[in-house]
Amino acid sequence: MEAKSPSESRTTLTDLVLPSETNPLNNLFGGELLARMDRAASIAARRHSRRIVVTASVNHVAFNKAIPLGSVVTVEAVVSRAFKSSMEIYIDVWVEDRESGRRTKANEAIYTFVAVDETGTPIQIPALKPETDLEKERFDAALRRKQLSLVLAGKMKPKEATELKALFE
Amino acid sequence: MEAKSPSESRTTLTDLVLPSETNPLNNLFGGELLARMDRAASIAARRHSRRIVVTASVNHVAFNKAIPLGSVVTVEAVVSRAFKSSMEIYIDVWVEDRESGRRTKANEAIYTFVAVDETGTPIQIPALKPETDLEKERFDAALRRKQLSLVLAGKMKPKEATELKALFE
Amino acid sequence: MEAKSPSESRTTLTDLVLPSETNPLNNLFGGELLARMDRAASIAARRHSRRIVVTASVNHVAFNKAIPLGSVVTVEAVVSRAFKSSMEIYIDVWVEDRESGRRTKANEAIYTFVAVDETGTPIQIPALKPETDLEKERFDAALRRKQLSLVLAGKMKPKEATELKALFE
Amino acid sequence: MEAKSPSESRTTLTDLVLPSETNPLNNLFGGELLARMDRAASIAARRHSRRIVVTASVNHVAFNKAIPLGSVVTVEAVVSRAFKSSMEIYIDVWVEDRESGRRTKANEAIYTFVAVDETGTPIQIPALKPETDLEKERFDAALRRKQLSLVLAGKMKPKEATELKALFE
Amino acid sequence: MEAKSPSESRTTLTDLVLPSETNPLNNLFGGELLARMDRAASIAARRHSRRIVVTASVNHVAFNKAIPLGSVVTVEAVVSRAFKSSMEIYIDVWVEDRESGRRTKANEAIYTFVAVDETGTPIQIPALKPETDLEKERFDAALRRKQLSLVLAGKMKPKEATELKALFE
Amino acid sequence: MEAKSPSESRTTLTDLVLPSETNPLNNLFGGELLARMDRAASIAARRHSRRIVVTASVNHVAFNKAIPLGSVVTVEAVVSRAFKSSMEIYIDVWVEDRESGRRTKANEAIYTFVAVDETGTPIQIPALKPETDLEKERFDAALRRKQLSLVLAGKMKPKEATELKALFE
Repeated sequence: MEAKSPSESRTTLTDLVLPSETNPLNNLFGGELLARMDRAASIAARRHSRRIVVTASVNHVAFNKAIPLGSVVTVEAVVSRAFKSSMEIYIDVWVEDRESGRRTKANEAIYTFVAVDETGTPIQIPALKPETDLEKERFDAALRRKQLSLVLAGKMKPKEATELKALFE
Repeated sequence: MEAKSPSESRTTLTDLVLPSETNPLNNLFGGELLARMDRAASIAARRHSRRIVVTASVNHVAFNKAIPLGSVVTVEAVVSRAFKSSMEIYIDVWVEDRESGRRTKANEAIYTFVAVDETGTPIQIPALKPETDLEKERFDAALRRKQLSLVLAGKMKPKEATELKALFE
Repeated sequence: MEAKSPSESRTTLTDLVLPSETNPLNNLFGGELLARMDRAASIAARRHSRRIVVTASVNHVAFNKAIPLGSVVTVEAVVSRAFKSSMEIYIDVWVEDRESGRRTKANEAIYTFVAVDETGTPIQIPALKPETDLEKERFDAALRRKQLSLVLAGKMKPKEATELKALFE
Repeated sequence: MEAKSPSESRTTLTDLVLPSETNPLNNLFGGELLARMDRAASIAARRHSRRIVVTASVNHVAFNKAIPLGSVVTVEAVVSRAFKSSMEIYIDVWVEDRESGRRTKANEAIYTFVAVDETGTPIQIPALKPETDLEKERFDAALRRKQLSLVLAGKMKPKEATELKALFE
Repeated sequence: MEAKSPSESRTTLTDLVLPSETNPLNNLFGGELLARMDRAASIAARRHSRRIVVTASVNHVAFNKAIPLGSVVTVEAVVSRAFKSSMEIYIDVWVEDRESGRRTKANEAIYTFVAVDETGTPIQIPALKPETDLEKERFDAALRRKQLSLVLAGKMKPKEATELKALFE
Repeated sequence: MEAKSPSESRTTLTDLVLPSETNPLNNLFGGELLARMDRAASIAARRHSRRIVVTASVNHVAFNKAIPLGSVVTVEAVVSRAFKSSMEIYIDVWVEDRESGRRTKANEAIYTFVAVDETGTPIQIPALKPETDLEKERFDAALRRKQLSLVLAGKMKPKEATELKALFE
């Protein structure tokens, strides 16, 4: 299987914040944003693998910036690293101001998806070949995140997580 | 007000066809597609005008190709011509095959939006300066469509619709 | 197959404008109204043909009048002309004032549906026999609209569209 | 205030059973039908009173007949009796067969609504003048139901419910 | 089949009142509350019977207390009596004040569900053995309600409804 | 402010998996589960703080087990540790088998919420006093997770994260 570039999976979902999606402060519900990011990420994963894909995990997501009712929100998802059958998807969320047109970063999130066949069994997928500096940086960090996730799940001993351990030395 | 290019309003909404959006043949409901196109078009109109915008009309929309459950659908909306306070938005809808990754055109539609202030009064907007050949072609055709719309609404006499009349000679 | 009267397909969908269906001006979203009209029209098409029906096209729709949150909206759909396997559906939208009870016209729209069998193949349907003056007027205009639609789709030469051409002479 | 006839409040909501509204047997969820009946009934109550109306109670509702996915369902609501500020609404639900076009009764339900001013205080409404035999019969039964409801709520002694008591003698 | 205790079916659904579920007074729609109660009740019925269950009827439901937007609502459903294949489910609805944390009763409702096999045929279910005083009181009242329901449906003569008749003597 | 016990915030949301919430394998969408967990967690945070609360972050969430259409899913959220104005919420998700009634763990997730006043400014909240062994274990781990989150966000140097660092020694 030939390696693919991130641009082959990049997925853009630009949509409005509707009244049914807001909390008591009139901002987009955290849960709604998580659902939109999951849909965009699943399309990116599917574009990379050309397989059925299912959500495997969501990494740490910080909600730094409230997104008010009526905003235009752009969710951009792209595969940041492919492992045997799983993919890490990096998601950037942008909000744009109606009057100035300026876009500001509202969130970042990282999801992991697994490609499966029709019985739900994991299946091999192409590698990812990062191109830009940002893509390479995220590609490298993806390995540390995978180790962290294995450590937290008790499937890897902290001392074996060499990439991760280096952080604390 | 400075004229804007189409690229400044281009809006991409890529999303899945969910089970709650399908008809008895398991294809995307016409009405659901119309609603998605309306949301994408309203964002394009807002990006061009930086104003509150409201749907003024929907031109003829043909549903040539059924879009099955689980498809990835891309709705791409862009301003094709700006008049005094109204904008024509051209919408292309693409469906992509999961296995081959091939995109095929599923629909085209044309919406008109009006920019208004907070009392709902129409307000002046920038002109559009088309750049590519396709953008120029759609820009020219927009005037014929506006005349046709005025004729059909009884607000212009057919004989005065010079652009349109030429078609039948 | 025996011809049917419009009253056999007339469909009334009276419902509220709910908070989740409004735009930033607190009026019904254009896209939501298009979706309601599509559902009512599909029922009218189904009542005429007694077949599975799918949306084929939406003719020009003008949104002349904003419909505020909490309104009672009546969508009335009726078959205005039947062709071989397609039907034109005429839709009238009324809004009613809570205090006076007065109904005012908010929109008109025209949809085309095609009757299909369970494989999605078009299938023959009964003719329509208009009765009232309004029904006859809409029946005649339907042919012009069909020609216009064929011309716009490049499937008929403008000069062959005899009904339509007469408009401009 | 002049009495009104039932025809002034009659409300028809014809709509499809969508995939998102069905239970594991692929029939319309009881809860969804209750919500549709509530919306239709609230419009009927509003048409009679021309006031803001709120649901006060739902009488016994039996679900005798399953309504399958894709059905066309007609909910017809009409005021059956008006008291000081409350109204009884009688609701008939019909399902129609696509092939034969035959309508069969699927449900009956009775809701009570109260008319209120903008502070939520109950407010006087016009009386109802039944016209047809069915309307008269439902008008008479409404009083027995009101007594039953007061008895069940402990607000009337069973022995004072003269209309109701007669049933058991 | 062994009798079961009410605690084996008790079901708690605590959720927010979202903006898309409110009426013009900004309170939870009656219809939405009916739908939530139906879902909670169906889970309780399923836990008691371990079968597919369908809504058979809704007894009298009074909406005594408006539930404002943003409230936390707890719907608690429990089987109150089991008959041959049907179950009565008693539902208590509580609203809680954010600042004081105090819970107040907002509604009570009684639904009946029937357990069916996969063809939709009613099937025998375990009996219910009430334990607390409240459970015993509701268990006894359930028989009177069943008789009332049969009388209202014309399936039992009022004079044979011994439990019910006693009320009026 | 007096410390509170976890039982004062425990929130149970038991509901069905509806057809509109499933992916192409007919299992609950990851995004839908994230949204349900967010709603339950926000109620737990609100019960502990009696304030308006907003989602601050979602810790790592693993989707180990698919949850099929029609399942009964219980989301149980409880505050696991309170900091100055933020709270960690621990969420357990259970699925139950209809026939055996057996509950199995489907997911665990950890969300962080912040309590704010009506202008959105963070505000002080009561401490949490864990009681059971499990509650104490989660309370201790919460501090390590907070440090990890600060390190990942670049707001704390890895070497200062004493609790976390110990893990790798």
